[in-house]
Amino acid sequence: MGKRIYLNAFDMNTVGHQSPGLWSHPEDQSERYRDLDYWVELARLLEKGKFDGIFLADVLGFYDVHNGSKNAAVEQAVQAPANDPLLLISAMANATEHLGFGLTYSLTYEQPYMLARRFSTLDHLTKGRIAWNIVSSYLESAAKNFGLEGQIPHDKRYDIADEFLDVTYKLWEGSWEDDAVVRDKERKVYTDPSKVHDINHEGEFFKVPGAHLCEPSPQRTPVLYQAGASPRGREFAAKHAECVFTAGPTANIVKKGVADLRERTKNHGRNPEDVIVYTVFTPIVGKTEEEAQKKYEEIKSYVSYEGALALLSGWTGIDFSGYDPDQTLEYIESNAIQSAVEVFTKADPNHKWTVRELATFVGIGGRGPVAVGSPEQIADQLEYWVEETGVDGFNLAYTLAPGSFEDFVELVIPILQERGLVQTDYEEGTYREKLYGKGQNHLKESHPGFAYKNLYQQVKGV
Amino acid sequence: MGKRIYLNAFDMNTVGHQSPGLWSHPEDQSERYRDLDYWVELARLLEKGKFDGIFLADVLGFYDVHNGSKNAAVEQAVQAPANDPLLLISAMANATEHLGFGLTYSLTYEQPYMLARRFSTLDHLTKGRIAWNIVSSYLESAAKNFGLEGQIPHDKRYDIADEFLDVTYKLWEGSWEDDAVVRDKERKVYTDPSKVHDINHEGEFFKVPGAHLCEPSPQRTPVLYQAGASPRGREFAAKHAECVFTAGPTANIVKKGVADLRERTKNHGRNPEDVIVYTVFTPIVGKTEEEAQKKYEEIKSYVSYEGALALLSGWTGIDFSGYDPDQTLEYIESNAIQSAVEVFTKADPNHKWTVRELATFVGIGGRGPVAVGSPEQIADQLEYWVEETGVDGFNLAYTLAPGSFEDFVELVIPILQERGLVQTDYEEGTYREKLYGKGQNHLKESHPGFAYKNLYQQVKGV
Repeated sequence: MGKRIYLNAFDMNTVGHQSPGLWSHPEDQSERYRDLDYWVELARLLEKGKFDGIFLADVLGFYDVHNGSKNAAVEQAVQAPANDPLLLISAMANATEHLGFGLTYSLTYEQPYMLARRFSTLDHLTKGRIAWNIVSSYLESAAKNFGLEGQIPHDKRYDIADEFLDVTYKLWEGSWEDDAVVRDKERKVYTDPSKVHDINHEGEFFKVPGAHLCEPSPQRTPVLYQAGASPRGREFAAKHAECVFTAGPTANIVKKGVADLRERTKNHGRNPEDVIVYTVFTPIVGKTEEEAQKKYEEIKSYVSYEGALALLSGWTGIDFSGYDPDQTLEYIESNAIQSAVEVFTKADPNHKWTVRELATFVGIGGRGPVAVGSPEQIADQLEYWVEETGVDGFNLAYTLAPGSFEDFVELVIPILQERGLVQTDYEEGTYREKLYGKGQNHLKESHPGFAYKNLYQQVKGV
Repeated sequence: MGKRIYLNAFDMNTVGHQSPGLWSHPEDQSERYRDLDYWVELARLLEKGKFDGIFLADVLGFYDVHNGSKNAAVEQAVQAPANDPLLLISAMANATEHLGFGLTYSLTYEQPYMLARRFSTLDHLTKGRIAWNIVSSYLESAAKNFGLEGQIPHDKRYDIADEFLDVTYKLWEGSWEDDAVVRDKERKVYTDPSKVHDINHEGEFFKVPGAHLCEPSPQRTPVLYQAGASPRGREFAAKHAECVFTAGPTANIVKKGVADLRERTKNHGRNPEDVIVYTVFTPIVGKTEEEAQKKYEEIKSYVSYEGALALLSGWTGIDFSGYDPDQTLEYIESNAIQSAVEVFTKADPNHKWTVRELATFVGIGGRGPVAVGSPEQIADQLEYWVEETGVDGFNLAYTLAPGSFEDFVELVIPILQERGLVQTDYEEGTYREKLYGKGQNHLKESHPGFAYKNLYQQVKGV
């Protein structure tokens, strides 16, 4: 097998993740998100399909831009209600051996001392299968519920994020030396206290004097994901991320993003190939092309127009409620809207999209390609995207939960395996070892977090 | 069966909870706290023994008063390292059906909007088996790592806690009406948005305008535990707590505490019997009295003197490092120390305790009675404590993990069951139903949180 394709299931601890209205489809079970069995079954299914991981999104507020209200999002369960993703993990980890867990967790409303403990705890309990998708929340409604007057300005959020990561690197990498914990029952020493260091962090935004509360976990720093799309976000990803999650409706858009990211990564003194890039992809698969097309038409009929607009308005910050559903987008004069929808309409530049068509496109997972076809056609599409864009893998979105993943595991995985494009079994080891090879439990030397290793060691190199 | 005794296992996501040095005993497995299997096995054991719940303590800093350093605590693994307790729950819940989970979680360093989501998520995933032990952290070392100059003054912490609970009651009880979520696939309505309300909270310490992120969980508000020992803490418990965790080395001390608490509860317009009081109790059981005594002597020999002083100094705020281990406590002139140790020495007022003896007493779980004996003798002791003090149950501390719990389930539980003192099987239902009876999923009408139910309902009583 040459360069293999990495596969994550893209999901969220909510009813309808990226397919507004599909919760009402008779086969959809996503309302079972409240039930541990649902998640345990899903984790086992994904491990059966040798998925690399499950990637869980998160939001901390409601989508309330559309019509200036959360009503459409609440009615159609568009990422609302939204439960905490971290609290699902120990049950899924206990039911699996290899599946990785990519967890979206905002640093905007949390102290680094606490966040570091949460991820160390999970990394211990999963024996090193944890990744953190670093986000600084984008919803105004979230900021207000955490006592802020409004959102922190975008670039300042990234300055805070940079210092936040400094603190967590100090805690994860520097505070406890590798041989601090000895667990010596004879000598009656659990930990050598001379090897546990206060980090004495005093920065612009944070002041953290003490030592990390947790002993070193298998990976120390969790695998770091990032998904920033702005220039400042890409810079941040190029510096810190080991995995990047990108999205775009055409191969050409994604290709440009990947190239830009790898270039920036190089400028940070890192090997551009050390950043593993995933793009979102929604497969609608049938045993035959006809069956897939039929399924696609049926799925489209369940998309909620209002729910899709709630999602789109939340993402773009633009209220679409004032427009006629059949109005074509070219007649919408606002430049802001033009620029917001550009990314979607580029999927087919010759077509005159109406607001309703755009909503439908968004409603079936369309922040990226929606591929409809036979198992072979889906496999072809995945191959095409890897070759065209330079991505390393996919976050596979569902239209029906867990049906979309069941179809994919049953029908598409065997073909990808036959073609030698995905793994047929797991490598042993931690999430980071599975990405970078045996022995690479901790950050690579070229990663900026590596510099914090042994930072506080009192006698160096002796 | 008359009034039954409630039993919790008292534990923490750490190596040595309340028995410093015992981690080095050959049979102790508490270093497996990093391993999910350890917790799943423990949960199954407790459910086999029909324990009502597991009660997990937590700290957010190191015990660093002793010698002005965290070294003794770190070396002897005295509640250090300390991992997050909430992240254990889904695995334990998935392996059990009835066991309740009492989770200590400090509100001092968390926003109510986030905490409410965490507990709602857990209440959903466990189908209503969650309790929150409300604490405002007492360790100076914790405060500093969350960016504060030092601890918030004690009484102000309780003022903040009062408003914090107001916010969470609004989110848990008021924000989503009982019939807001309809999940109507035919009508394509998941939630009726007119029944999901912004809480518009503007108080002295918190400003939370929005609606709760989670749909109503089985219990809405988790069962509320509190363990405050100060007058202000008792007032807080009398107002908010459904379960209270108390500690004292003699029946007489505990009895006075229980009477005071029930009196205060009555003053808040609540039935004093609606507060279920647990006291800490450390059983050391053998098949015979002789075997138990032998075990006790062996356990004592593993107590870490320095570790015990680290724990004692952390609890009392007094540095014991300057004293000769064989100095009797009466010769320690500081009034502060006298008052701090009084609660311990009252266990036997005629004995002249040395510092070493006090440390040993603390080192085997002695914040309360340590009972050594045959299964019958332990059962007698438990009966005696209930009759003498008016408590309703016990948080059973371990000296050896999980051995202490294995012994108790194997040897003591059958005798307690024979005597009709503990349940022989679980009642169906949520944690709160198990405490208060069938149908009582939500807060009782006399509880202050009940007033927030339907607070935002737009047409009342129509």
